[in-house]
Amino acid sequence: MADIIVTGHKNPDTDSICAAVAYANLKTKVTGEVYTAKRAGNVSDETQYVLDKFGVEAPALIEDATDKKIVLVDHNEVAQAVDNIEKAEILEIIDHHKIGTIQTAAPIYFRNEPVGCCSTIVYKMYKENGVEIEKSIAGLLVSAILSDTLIFKSPTCTDVDVEAATELAKIAGVDVNEHGMAMFKAGSNVSSKTAKEVFYQDFKKFELGGKVIGVGQVNAMGSDGVKEVKEKIADFIGTVIGEDGIEQTYLMVTDILDESSDVVFAGEGADKVLADAFDVTVNGDSVYLKGVVSRKKQMIPSLTKAIQG
Amino acid sequence: MADIIVTGHKNPDTDSICAAVAYANLKTKVTGEVYTAKRAGNVSDETQYVLDKFGVEAPALIEDATDKKIVLVDHNEVAQAVDNIEKAEILEIIDHHKIGTIQTAAPIYFRNEPVGCCSTIVYKMYKENGVEIEKSIAGLLVSAILSDTLIFKSPTCTDVDVEAATELAKIAGVDVNEHGMAMFKAGSNVSSKTAKEVFYQDFKKFELGGKVIGVGQVNAMGSDGVKEVKEKIADFIGTVIGEDGIEQTYLMVTDILDESSDVVFAGEGADKVLADAFDVTVNGDSVYLKGVVSRKKQMIPSLTKAIQG
Repeated sequence: MADIIVTGHKNPDTDSICAAVAYANLKTKVTGEVYTAKRAGNVSDETQYVLDKFGVEAPALIEDATDKKIVLVDHNEVAQAVDNIEKAEILEIIDHHKIGTIQTAAPIYFRNEPVGCCSTIVYKMYKENGVEIEKSIAGLLVSAILSDTLIFKSPTCTDVDVEAATELAKIAGVDVNEHGMAMFKAGSNVSSKTAKEVFYQDFKKFELGGKVIGVGQVNAMGSDGVKEVKEKIADFIGTVIGEDGIEQTYLMVTDILDESSDVVFAGEGADKVLADAFDVTVNGDSVYLKGVVSRKKQMIPSLTKAIQG
Repeated sequence: MADIIVTGHKNPDTDSICAAVAYANLKTKVTGEVYTAKRAGNVSDETQYVLDKFGVEAPALIEDATDKKIVLVDHNEVAQAVDNIEKAEILEIIDHHKIGTIQTAAPIYFRNEPVGCCSTIVYKMYKENGVEIEKSIAGLLVSAILSDTLIFKSPTCTDVDVEAATELAKIAGVDVNEHGMAMFKAGSNVSSKTAKEVFYQDFKKFELGGKVIGVGQVNAMGSDGVKEVKEKIADFIGTVIGEDGIEQTYLMVTDILDESSDVVFAGEGADKVLADAFDVTVNGDSVYLKGVVSRKKQMIPSLTKAIQG
């Protein structure tokens, strides 16, 4: 029998890579069948730092899901999944996002929990199955949690995430603050990158009220970092409109130190949507939103309301 | 704060009523908040028998979900949910069907497991939360499992369902076979009912490949029972086409003793779909399918494949 593939979303972030690797490891141990983690896009600098630190090789790339047996982690939206996902057999979904557009022909195991990180759920499943967590896997999982929750500062972070990360950090032998900051620093170097690479680093497509929008997020450390990212992508963002059906696009440039985001936008009506969504006046080509750091819990629900009315 | 409503699907079967009552009971005990079970349609004779036997009142009717806080059990399809579900705040979904069309604006707890009955998952959650199951609740849960799995004979039935039902039957003080047969007998009396009542007793709408179809299921005991149902609805089934957007409709008249279904159909192309789906020759207005007793595991996946190609 062909291997079963475990994969996160396109433009994978640290959680999408680490949760896939860890869940494939767990499922192989529990079932005796071969589960192989794959990546649905390039590994980011942040994620590469994590993989290197814990001595784990990056998973191989998957570009086409046709006729594959697949487990999805960290997403349940067709628009974010590897191409031809509708021609794959989806066996399971483990996620922590809003309920999206994936449908199946038969009942499957779908576990979606409103926690800050998919890797937190994977950690719980190791515990539930009584499987010991190797040091390297613990390193990946704690990194994903620190990444998704911005070291526990994101409003998406729950007690369950903190508890999981604390336990995992012990196994991995890292200090959460020190490791988290080092990881974000590794991920926030944009100087050697093209505008396109920076823009698509963590970019997701959504269908809201019949409209296709793209929402990216790039982390920066301090206002200089934010400025550098904004300058880098200023001329590029407009070219995204019309690509792949996208009508409006938003890039959250999130300052991890200031706990805020500068949202750069493009596409007709995007200014109006942002103004409605956050009850702010929009001048120029970006909006500063203090306290807004989560795409999932703050950005998407507000955009959804503004677009769907 | 307004109560939180727990509800199953429209045209509720025994699982949709019993899982809602039991899950509302569990959530109220665990959280201290008030969760109230509601029904999204009429209570069937089978379900009424179960409610009477265990001394539980039928939940109140819910017809409009607008602005309500809602937990969905036993479904995750917009077409099957109470009206205006898109204007409700969906807090959780507990289900055992294919992944369907419900979407949310924010992350929620969604637990879908490929087991035979939603009440089996509710049973597991009582255990996981260390909450004792009252005799009446155990009676409802075991009834739902016996109903959905046709007393363990449906291909949807898993070891987990059998284990749950066996444990629950002890608490409820019933014999699974005896109670199951009595329940089906109570539910299979169609003589006093109109064709419409019989037809819509357990009827679900699906959107498959852009086509809206309706698939109902009525249980009967033996070939005389099957014949009676088929005669009852023979003239009615054609009137369903065009109602509520339905293009094709199928009614599984399932013989619990013979473990088979006579599928009556209407709507352009329905004969061709059935022929493709089950690789049979279709003459007349119904097809006998030996061994086909599950809408979820046999009927819907086969129809999906035949319609979507």
